[in-house]
Amino acid sequence: MLISYDGTDLNGWQIQPNGPSVQSHLADAIERVTGQRIYPVGSGRTDAGVHAIAQVAHFDVESRLTPHTLLRALNHFLPESIVIREIAEVPNTFHASKSAIRKLYRYVYSDSEVRDIFQRQFAWRVHYRLNERAMDEGAGLILGTHDFRSFETEWPNRKSSVRTIYRCEVSRLGNNLILDIEANGFLYNMVRTIAGSLYEIGRGRWEPGRMKEIVDGGDRSLAGQTAPPQGLFLVRVTYPDFSTDAEVPTSENDDLEE
Amino acid sequence: MLISYDGTDLNGWQIQPNGPSVQSHLADAIERVTGQRIYPVGSGRTDAGVHAIAQVAHFDVESRLTPHTLLRALNHFLPESIVIREIAEVPNTFHASKSAIRKLYRYVYSDSEVRDIFQRQFAWRVHYRLNERAMDEGAGLILGTHDFRSFETEWPNRKSSVRTIYRCEVSRLGNNLILDIEANGFLYNMVRTIAGSLYEIGRGRWEPGRMKEIVDGGDRSLAGQTAPPQGLFLVRVTYPDFSTDAEVPTSENDDLEE
Repeated sequence: MLISYDGTDLNGWQIQPNGPSVQSHLADAIERVTGQRIYPVGSGRTDAGVHAIAQVAHFDVESRLTPHTLLRALNHFLPESIVIREIAEVPNTFHASKSAIRKLYRYVYSDSEVRDIFQRQFAWRVHYRLNERAMDEGAGLILGTHDFRSFETEWPNRKSSVRTIYRCEVSRLGNNLILDIEANGFLYNMVRTIAGSLYEIGRGRWEPGRMKEIVDGGDRSLAGQTAPPQGLFLVRVTYPDFSTDAEVPTSENDDLEE
Repeated sequence: MLISYDGTDLNGWQIQPNGPSVQSHLADAIERVTGQRIYPVGSGRTDAGVHAIAQVAHFDVESRLTPHTLLRALNHFLPESIVIREIAEVPNTFHASKSAIRKLYRYVYSDSEVRDIFQRQFAWRVHYRLNERAMDEGAGLILGTHDFRSFETEWPNRKSSVRTIYRCEVSRLGNNLILDIEANGFLYNMVRTIAGSLYEIGRGRWEPGRMKEIVDGGDRSLAGQTAPPQGLFLVRVTYPDFSTDAEVPTSENDDLEE
């Protein structure tokens, strides 16, 4: 399933005791349509308030419905804040999280002098005019393969914190700054901590070179704040072309990420 | 005051017994800042769910605060869905409604096959692919000065229903259709009824020429449905340049419009 959701009123991806999550809404819809209680597996978790343009999830179900009929039926039972954009049958070897080889996140800042009320749930409104060139320079310094533990929020990190960032850039679009970051996987809160660090560079408190120092230092306290969730969008998850019967590689992704 | 608001959770412009309105929020903020209970006068009412990029309102207050300080103080007390973008002192002859000479509204449709969750509060999601050329052709037929009573929702219409439409056009932007309509004033629900009529043309039920027949017929039952409020935005209100001491003309506007 390719899924979009507006995270504003949702309690994140993962099923939670304290409120509706994307996963629980999907499970409810699947149960209504197929009679089976199944929790779909997402490409990764997103926190409360975080949005997805294109989350990917898989589930195993026995059904005679075609994917298209299933899509229409499931969408009928989903709330207005969640929509399934596509459904396709996949080989049993496909796993939404383990098969993913790249993910692209976008983080949006808004630095207009007057707050933009239409973006209040879709951007981090900052109170300084941000310098996008300094931010982009800093962003470029963390490209490549590094240990990114400095950008990981406290968590029992059971595996390696080495990841590869393929793309990390900041651009301005009017009163918005757009951070696009693509990697083979992300640690918990990694994008939001990078966004919080670039914010300090953008407002002039830190030099762009600080980004390299944060990575080299290996210490969370060197990085900036965890930027608020409403600016974050999961934009794209990339998989190898499994339709070619190529063996599906598994990534280094933790399940416990963003 | 130049004001933006997201009408989703607001009960329209006008103070209401059954929920928070833009006017009551503004009055509350003015009272907090100045100690005086004052209801600002808007350029016109907007219904529940309708948005404003640039509503204009005036009020009379005795205060030593500069406009800029007043703006910051009022914004501090307004909810996140409302913001004052500008405040300026105006001559006593200025009246936000009576001095207005033109208003521009935008109505947004979304005709994507899969519903766009991020637009659900900012567009009318229709279930047919709309023909923007036919809609634009129909829109052009109501330009000029006419009696628009066919597009007015039942209301004790105390004055003339003659208005002049200066601009009325439909264009496509991806999966959105944009209706821009500018006139010297609007009747109650006029834009939404025009939007509902153009919808019938867009989906192929009516020919573009129907727009002229609706106007000529002078009968509300000839027109389409009143399109839902969340697609409607008040975009611009135009006044004569009152700073030049030109006499401020009064328009034909009813107070009871959109």
